[in-house]
Amino acid sequence: MSEEKKVCIVGSGNWGSVIAKIVGNNVTASANFHNRVPMYVYEEMINGEKLTEIINTKHENVKYLPGFKLPENVVAVPDIVEAAKDADILVFVVPHQFVGGLCKQLNGKLKPGALAVSLIKGLDISDKGLDLISNVIRKALGIECAVLMGANIAPEVARENYCEATIGCRDREMGRLLKEVFEAPYFRIVVVNDEQTVELCGALKNIVAVGAGFVDGLKYGDNTKAAVIRLGLMEMVKFCEEFFQSNVSGYRADEFMRICGMGDVVVTCYRGRNRLLAEAFVESGKTIEELEAEMLNGQKLQGPPTAAEVYTMLEQKGLTEKFPMFTAVHKICTGEKTPQAFIDCLKNHPEHMMS
Amino acid sequence: MSEEKKVCIVGSGNWGSVIAKIVGNNVTASANFHNRVPMYVYEEMINGEKLTEIINTKHENVKYLPGFKLPENVVAVPDIVEAAKDADILVFVVPHQFVGGLCKQLNGKLKPGALAVSLIKGLDISDKGLDLISNVIRKALGIECAVLMGANIAPEVARENYCEATIGCRDREMGRLLKEVFEAPYFRIVVVNDEQTVELCGALKNIVAVGAGFVDGLKYGDNTKAAVIRLGLMEMVKFCEEFFQSNVSGYRADEFMRICGMGDVVVTCYRGRNRLLAEAFVESGKTIEELEAEMLNGQKLQGPPTAAEVYTMLEQKGLTEKFPMFTAVHKICTGEKTPQAFIDCLKNHPEHMMS
Repeated sequence: MSEEKKVCIVGSGNWGSVIAKIVGNNVTASANFHNRVPMYVYEEMINGEKLTEIINTKHENVKYLPGFKLPENVVAVPDIVEAAKDADILVFVVPHQFVGGLCKQLNGKLKPGALAVSLIKGLDISDKGLDLISNVIRKALGIECAVLMGANIAPEVARENYCEATIGCRDREMGRLLKEVFEAPYFRIVVVNDEQTVELCGALKNIVAVGAGFVDGLKYGDNTKAAVIRLGLMEMVKFCEEFFQSNVSGYRADEFMRICGMGDVVVTCYRGRNRLLAEAFVESGKTIEELEAEMLNGQKLQGPPTAAEVYTMLEQKGLTEKFPMFTAVHKICTGEKTPQAFIDCLKNHPEHMMS
Repeated sequence: MSEEKKVCIVGSGNWGSVIAKIVGNNVTASANFHNRVPMYVYEEMINGEKLTEIINTKHENVKYLPGFKLPENVVAVPDIVEAAKDADILVFVVPHQFVGGLCKQLNGKLKPGALAVSLIKGLDISDKGLDLISNVIRKALGIECAVLMGANIAPEVARENYCEATIGCRDREMGRLLKEVFEAPYFRIVVVNDEQTVELCGALKNIVAVGAGFVDGLKYGDNTKAAVIRLGLMEMVKFCEEFFQSNVSGYRADEFMRICGMGDVVVTCYRGRNRLLAEAFVESGKTIEELEAEMLNGQKLQGPPTAAEVYTMLEQKGLTEKFPMFTAVHKICTGEKTPQAFIDCLKNHPEHMMS
């Protein structure tokens, strides 16, 4: 019999806490996993008490997932190296700007054969260009890294409403193992091998959701939003093909988008935080930063920085006209264009021109 | 210079009236069309006055599109043969149960070379099996028939909020002509040649929307609805392939669904009448018929009869297990299953099984 696998959750925000709840219950129910699930928590003081201590005594992340109990086998650990040292499976679920620093601390301190799975929505940009967060993890730690993406609005998953998620994983056995870590009766997992498109979809959808929020803020209706979703998906597919096609054989971005990505885009455009904040951006005239401070309880939105990173890439390659929606979202977020320009972008989108 | 084309609208319900508004304005703006647009109206008495007379004096369809003016060149005509006699383009937009009878009256009375375009969402079932409404029109009248489908929630199009529609038309020139009839700055048309899938999407989406309404009625959230949309699209694609693949060369149902159908399904699952009524069905415990009488002002819902027709086909071919969502929607509408069974259908859908 093979050894019990140990799972560590790297992160404890809203989504990280929901995932810890699922994983904590799953490892208890299965003989294949060790029961204790360390969760790396960035230490904060909450009314004079450490967040890790609150979690480990009350079994509730009072800051990021108030109102839901975590399983008692999920143990908050404020030291990343301590949390991860015995792990066979590392679940990365932190804002993407923290990935580099955490990996640096973990480098050389992991158990041999450890695997990672990234739940992070975003892209990495450096002077070498755009990269996937999973690649940042792979390169920094020298380990395999799969991805898990929605459609998953965190509070609904916390309430155990039925939903689906997608794991992107090239290795079939690893895919099966991860399905066992995450799947619950209310949280169905589809495993696909095109991990790159799964991850890109998770990142790029937030740009589209910002566009959907603009449309809501401008008081357009659901027909208009359907056009945003459709045209946004078209740009997502085109982006995957343009920037990542050469890396994978048998690559079919459109296949994936049709199958799983579409649901993720829809949910994000109807209920996600990016949509909500973009709507408020139009209605209030405040900046994104002001609204993040007011509405997100200290968390950062992913859509606007992703749009900025994508825009940098598009501009470098002279491709902004082929991606008018991504471009418009970025320019509206920075104040270079008015929200109304987004409607003109829809009306004149190249997808409408009869060939 | 070619002769001015004459357009006739066959139908005057909610969607028919919105389309008459667009077409009436377009023919006035273009030299290619005759200015007068006859609209066939099934005569009804409204507070002692004929509906056709109200429309022709007040330029408003007070029963089916109150609050919006129709262009004065749209002329209500209570006799179908009179309305259609000079038409080069017949726009069919009536409930699908009336198509057969209207075509019977029109047979042999049309201008030579007349073309049809169907905006009807539904399927025809007879002892010969399932057929497309456009085929019913083609066979009954011996003329070409294209189709136009959404994503178009009628009241939003009436308010001139931006949206997209798709024309399915095999003939390229006819496609261009129809684009000119229907396109407006706020109503962008994509023309594709796979008219069959466009039409099937328009019909089958209403089954999915009934499922989305069940989920809303059961108080599940947007993640769950995203799963309904995704799994529904999968069944739609499978249905197109199973029942219509052999008729068209180079057939790619999935292509179309990804491109245009998806937006239509999304809108219908968030805002359509099928969704609304299905939600009320779960909440109230009333029958579909009772709710149609209460909520639809005399109009019939398309989702439940389409589900019934599809179910008949699936049962004949022994395929109900391959289409669990379509099957569940039908059985819940008829009371054979409870709405809660729909959630079980999602959880156990064959798309989730790892191959």
